[in-house]
Amino acid sequence: MSLHKIEHIGIAVKDLEASNALFTKLFGKPQYKIEEVASESVMTAFFESGPNKIELLQATHPDSPIAKFIEKKGEGIHHIAFAVEDIEAELKRLSNEGFELIHKVPKKGADQKLVAFLHPKSTNGVLIELCQDI
Amino acid sequence: MSLHKIEHIGIAVKDLEASNALFTKLFGKPQYKIEEVASESVMTAFFESGPNKIELLQATHPDSPIAKFIEKKGEGIHHIAFAVEDIEAELKRLSNEGFELIHKVPKKGADQKLVAFLHPKSTNGVLIELCQDI
Repeated sequence: MSLHKIEHIGIAVKDLEASNALFTKLFGKPQYKIEEVASESVMTAFFESGPNKIELLQATHPDSPIAKFIEKKGEGIHHIAFAVEDIEAELKRLSNEGFELIHKVPKKGADQKLVAFLHPKSTNGVLIELCQDI
Repeated sequence: MSLHKIEHIGIAVKDLEASNALFTKLFGKPQYKIEEVASESVMTAFFESGPNKIELLQATHPDSPIAKFIEKKGEGIHHIAFAVEDIEAELKRLSNEGFELIHKVPKKGADQKLVAFLHPKSTNGVLIELCQDI
């Protein structure tokens, strides 16, 4: 199996503290982690839903991809991340299948993962992340 | 646990046949089901990713919510569906927590489920579906 499961869904929010309170009500339990990813200029919070996670993302700088996304589209779902075992092999397979890669080489993401994104113009407008446990 | 897992992510597409070919390449295997939901004027296709599913939705009528979504926002992620055991109890809990319900009473959805949606204006712009196996 290539894409094992939905590892998480990333949701762009304006106010992480307010959104943490909202999603705590939704899930009936609080986020299990808050983590800054300085390279992406985002502060993140993670909620667990069984085998899956929800990642809330708030920009920490106006140049953050999340700030630009909210400016263009408003708050909402930003990306879907699929868990893979061998991210380099998957990137190679998907590139050979004609998908356009944003990252040809995986980089370090939040939550102890190696991550890489596919370009939404080759995936029906959906920003897809692959992630592998480090 | 209230919301057990991400049951599926719904993705609005213009051309289901073309998107089925695309997602077959992404997942390395074809959709396991194509199903029309006449009440929503949509044709759906389901792909499996471990414990989760991806539901592609194509409008079958210009008045379909999916046609309106694509007109406004373009192709892309339409909703997140969470699996629940007792959908009526969850709707009651979430209503009491202040979430706005689109459906106060669950209705029959695709893939043998009872479904109900929360209004995105109470959930950070994210359209959230609850679904329970029938």
